[in-house]
Amino acid sequence: MKIESVDFFYLSMPEVTTEADGSQDALLVRVSAGGYVGWGECEASPLTSIAGFLCPMSHGVCRPVRDSVLGKPLDSPADIARIAAEVEYNSMDLLQAAHTFSGVEMALWDVLGKAKDTPVWRLLGYSASHKKTPYASQLFGATPEETLRGARKARRDNFRAVKFGWGPIGRGSVQDDKDHLQAAREGLGPDGILLVDVGQIWGEDVAAAEARLPALEASGAIWLEEPFHASALEAYGQLAKLSLKVKIAGGEGAHNVSMARHLIDYGGIGFVQIDCGRIGGIGPAKAVADYAVERGITYVNHTFTSHLALSASLQPFAGLADHRICEFPFAPKALARDITANFLQRDTMGEIAAPDAPGLGIAIDMRALQKYLVDVEIKVAGRVLYATPELA
Amino acid sequence: MKIESVDFFYLSMPEVTTEADGSQDALLVRVSAGGYVGWGECEASPLTSIAGFLCPMSHGVCRPVRDSVLGKPLDSPADIARIAAEVEYNSMDLLQAAHTFSGVEMALWDVLGKAKDTPVWRLLGYSASHKKTPYASQLFGATPEETLRGARKARRDNFRAVKFGWGPIGRGSVQDDKDHLQAAREGLGPDGILLVDVGQIWGEDVAAAEARLPALEASGAIWLEEPFHASALEAYGQLAKLSLKVKIAGGEGAHNVSMARHLIDYGGIGFVQIDCGRIGGIGPAKAVADYAVERGITYVNHTFTSHLALSASLQPFAGLADHRICEFPFAPKALARDITANFLQRDTMGEIAAPDAPGLGIAIDMRALQKYLVDVEIKVAGRVLYATPELA
Repeated sequence: MKIESVDFFYLSMPEVTTEADGSQDALLVRVSAGGYVGWGECEASPLTSIAGFLCPMSHGVCRPVRDSVLGKPLDSPADIARIAAEVEYNSMDLLQAAHTFSGVEMALWDVLGKAKDTPVWRLLGYSASHKKTPYASQLFGATPEETLRGARKARRDNFRAVKFGWGPIGRGSVQDDKDHLQAAREGLGPDGILLVDVGQIWGEDVAAAEARLPALEASGAIWLEEPFHASALEAYGQLAKLSLKVKIAGGEGAHNVSMARHLIDYGGIGFVQIDCGRIGGIGPAKAVADYAVERGITYVNHTFTSHLALSASLQPFAGLADHRICEFPFAPKALARDITANFLQRDTMGEIAAPDAPGLGIAIDMRALQKYLVDVEIKVAGRVLYATPELA
Repeated sequence: MKIESVDFFYLSMPEVTTEADGSQDALLVRVSAGGYVGWGECEASPLTSIAGFLCPMSHGVCRPVRDSVLGKPLDSPADIARIAAEVEYNSMDLLQAAHTFSGVEMALWDVLGKAKDTPVWRLLGYSASHKKTPYASQLFGATPEETLRGARKARRDNFRAVKFGWGPIGRGSVQDDKDHLQAAREGLGPDGILLVDVGQIWGEDVAAAEARLPALEASGAIWLEEPFHASALEAYGQLAKLSLKVKIAGGEGAHNVSMARHLIDYGGIGFVQIDCGRIGGIGPAKAVADYAVERGITYVNHTFTSHLALSASLQPFAGLADHRICEFPFAPKALARDITANFLQRDTMGEIAAPDAPGLGIAIDMRALQKYLVDVEIKVAGRVLYATPELA
């Protein structure tokens, strides 16, 4: 097969707010090759990622992502790896390229799986798709009472594991944070799995993070996620040495395999969290999963949007039975629910698995897209480089 | 002062080729505040960087760069640092943000220097702008003879130091590379300073780089630049241990201070090369220069475009007398020469210094821009978010 076309669909909720909810917009990517159609999803900033695909070339290693994709052969996982290597080299000076390519790469796997009538996780070399324990990912409440209610609701909804993140945490006093953590534990009950995400709130301030460790330990949290800037390896490494019970988690900001490896080796994290929509897609995410196994730490997906993104994010560690916990968009905006025609259903135990279906196993609801489709036109030197595609 | 406006000017040569020449296009940034006008330059991919400035918000930490800049106070270096921190946090999920903000940040310093009637290097805390020895940055020839001629021409043009890069190097055999290195040395003469840039050609392949070390040593090259992918810290670290005479140089790919620090601490580089148009501007570059001093390694600018970018790139280490070598665009495209009304002139010794003039000390030739200005229009949901500004 040859890659015949790549189309971007910028979708958005009617209103986008400053809350840390990544499901307020989406950039879907459709790839056609050999009569098959595959889908992927970029994370985030649709307009910027579209520009990274089709911008005019600046020079030999600042080329648009398009140049390394369109017309290329697509018959095996090796072809996808080769395209990825070309993007990395040809677009080395185009910073956004990794985010742009991530959605394209997912769609390439989806096409390849459909063409070979096999799930992507098999193409990655796994022989089974193991059950995962999804955690309900939600924001901390504005008050401890709200956090308590969120935790109880998650348990009622059959989630044993819950991640609380962002909101007030890290912004007030150590005691404020303690109150939220206690409320979360109370709501989850003693057997609930509690995960905590502070969204880079402390920059590189190790002492601020350290001050919260006693409360985190007392709450029985399994991990503390993203205490620092994604690149603050030194701060990660210092905190990891100080935190004996609560492991440090991070990695969603990695836009290549090296960055994730560095968080493991220099940052001392115990959980590496990869967003397939940022790291360059499924292939690099699988490389990180392999490395996590080698280093004896746990791989986790990072997913806050649609079930297309969720399926893509499960593939890289579908075959790793011991890497059990997975992020699950608990309360996404309507957009993220509406755009797929099917979902990864939780079983009676509340667990999910990457679909045993060709490709990513997720169908797009084309009619649902209409409502969210953002009309975009990019014109350069009199030529229309991008216009929102017709839904057909 | 308040930041009143930020305008982007996308400039391009009529033809852009795949050669590794970063001067084929440019993205100028004009900032107005308190009646002053400052200029900066982003590196690279103008369309993508423009999109990063004005894209619709995706969520609270994927905001357009604009949101952290427009209307903010600008009265001191601390204000610039605060804006930079806001961009870093508010746009943490917008990968292109660092490149977009780089040009804006330079312009903020230019405005501030003009308002305070003082050079940017004084605002950075330096008391003098020391002379630098510019190296003529050029591509390796297609043949060793061409490389020889390039080296001789640079000496005739009063450049004692020359950097050869890209082209055939690393693509053929070890002997091919040796022939080029010998030709370069022959052309420079025994007292010429030879620097070698291989543009990430070996990915993470330490053995391929190691195989070239004897020829590099024999040629008396001072440094080997970017042997690997910008994030391949492990490969850098291994090669640094193997290369006792030829120091490793790198850092142009750093899009934040941490990345540069890691190349120093984990990668073992001896020269850290910072592009102010990528790392987030002059402030973070100064932080890297401070760190280089602390670690006893040498700071060097990375500049391949206009004298506006050159002046900006000299500011962060203008006051470091011992960090003497600097990159100098030797044969840029006409665009890079035409857009500034003045230049950093070399003295009779062939040396340059950051200007002793308010701000960056470089004036833009507004009439010259016309010829290179690329007409762009970005329309989202019926609203024009960007249209190439009028030249006035």
